[in-house]
Amino acid sequence: MPSPAQAEKAKLFLALHQGPRILVLPNAWDVASACIFEDAGFPAIATTSSGIANSLGYPDGQIIRRDEMLEVVARIVRAVSVPVTADMEAGYGKTPEDMAATARGVIEAGAVGLNLEDATGEGSGKLFEIAAQKEKIRSMIEAGKKEGVELVLNARTDIYLEEIGEPSTRAERAIERLNAYREAGAASLFAPGVQDAATIERLVRGVRGPLNILGRAGTPPVRELERLGVARVSVGGGPMRVTMTVVSRIAKHLRDDGDFAVFAEVMPFVEANRLMPKR
Amino acid sequence: MPSPAQAEKAKLFLALHQGPRILVLPNAWDVASACIFEDAGFPAIATTSSGIANSLGYPDGQIIRRDEMLEVVARIVRAVSVPVTADMEAGYGKTPEDMAATARGVIEAGAVGLNLEDATGEGSGKLFEIAAQKEKIRSMIEAGKKEGVELVLNARTDIYLEEIGEPSTRAERAIERLNAYREAGAASLFAPGVQDAATIERLVRGVRGPLNILGRAGTPPVRELERLGVARVSVGGGPMRVTMTVVSRIAKHLRDDGDFAVFAEVMPFVEANRLMPKR
Repeated sequence: MPSPAQAEKAKLFLALHQGPRILVLPNAWDVASACIFEDAGFPAIATTSSGIANSLGYPDGQIIRRDEMLEVVARIVRAVSVPVTADMEAGYGKTPEDMAATARGVIEAGAVGLNLEDATGEGSGKLFEIAAQKEKIRSMIEAGKKEGVELVLNARTDIYLEEIGEPSTRAERAIERLNAYREAGAASLFAPGVQDAATIERLVRGVRGPLNILGRAGTPPVRELERLGVARVSVGGGPMRVTMTVVSRIAKHLRDDGDFAVFAEVMPFVEANRLMPKR
Repeated sequence: MPSPAQAEKAKLFLALHQGPRILVLPNAWDVASACIFEDAGFPAIATTSSGIANSLGYPDGQIIRRDEMLEVVARIVRAVSVPVTADMEAGYGKTPEDMAATARGVIEAGAVGLNLEDATGEGSGKLFEIAAQKEKIRSMIEAGKKEGVELVLNARTDIYLEEIGEPSTRAERAIERLNAYREAGAASLFAPGVQDAATIERLVRGVRGPLNILGRAGTPPVRELERLGVARVSVGGGPMRVTMTVVSRIAKHLRDDGDFAVFAEVMPFVEANRLMPKR
């Protein structure tokens, strides 16, 4: 059974969605990145499913096994003291029972929140039916309650990322879905892929719960998102893929230029070790 | 039992130490970094013990368990087709039997080479006795042969990194140790911490086997190392710690500036997934 401390952590994490300040949530993919984010003072940490998948050698899109994903989540939870929320893609399964098992796995890993998306697959261009998605959400929340933890479920609609339907109808359909997910018990509502302030504002007004926006190059700055009423902004696989760009640059530099100038900005060995959890 | 292909890979890896070109060996800490290095065309990949330890939440210095280290090595081996050599710190144990078990673990993970250091601990300022270190090396090589794989053992002396003894006597003592390790069966001889061309040249002349130098900011460029007769240059935890610097910068940027400009140089999602091994 989870400790009472975990239930408390879930409440603390939920409270961070209730303003007055926007919650800026960085996404980690390994313990090192999680420790760096905690050290920088963020009050909670999310995981990135694409980052964890790539780090372990899988393309994104629910190819990785649930237990492999949860093993990394558990490592991160053990290493930091702030609340952790886990990106669980589409829940690793199809049935409400699968969803309950995933929710129990998230709690066992020590996390207090999770992301659940509604696309039937990466790049599938299709979404699960609203009723089916609501049932999954209910099943996860219910499973959490049985374990004594009110999971902060961040329900995501993939309408924008998957570019589904007429662009002019997307906001309306996103609002419909997110409100349905809210009704099913989702604590937070996630519309990744939205970049323009006008649409963000429309979503904020239309959804009946805290709105989560994905921050990427071109997204309005944090202060502006806060002004628009966004409750939470996360960065997905962005930080991990920036490091992949850097590794790629190091690789080409070593190969083509053949010098070690690229290591001038290395984090000192002692500093890297200092960031690691004390045991 | 290892496949005949693994024995062949070990021979291929050994041949890369025999010139005429220097072997530039990048060090990976997860599958993503390994795939990026392979994609850039490197003929072999090393692991970094500090990078893997930090990625899993341990400080460097043999705090991580052997099986955890080998699990990451095995993931990397499964993901790339080039030979992989594993940094096994001081061998995760004390006795020749421990060393044999570590060598078997390396082979089971699919790697064809390993690093073995001679410091008694990170920052201990002490080295194992030469005779004891030779016995460990022999035990590892022997264990490999019994499994049918001639492990490419890279024997490291920590005289420079640990700054042991009078600076003026270090080259002489490093040469003595590396030649003793060579006699015990080490295929490659590693003197990390040496930066100046004159000392590198002296080591090249003094050791009776391929010399491995650690490339860091300030190390002579690859072309110069090759001219000096260095057989192999690796980069240790450098690339991983550069990414930690970058993550730290992203964290501070998100926290203090609160915009997402830092993601302008992100590797596209599709490109990150393309790098992953095909299954």
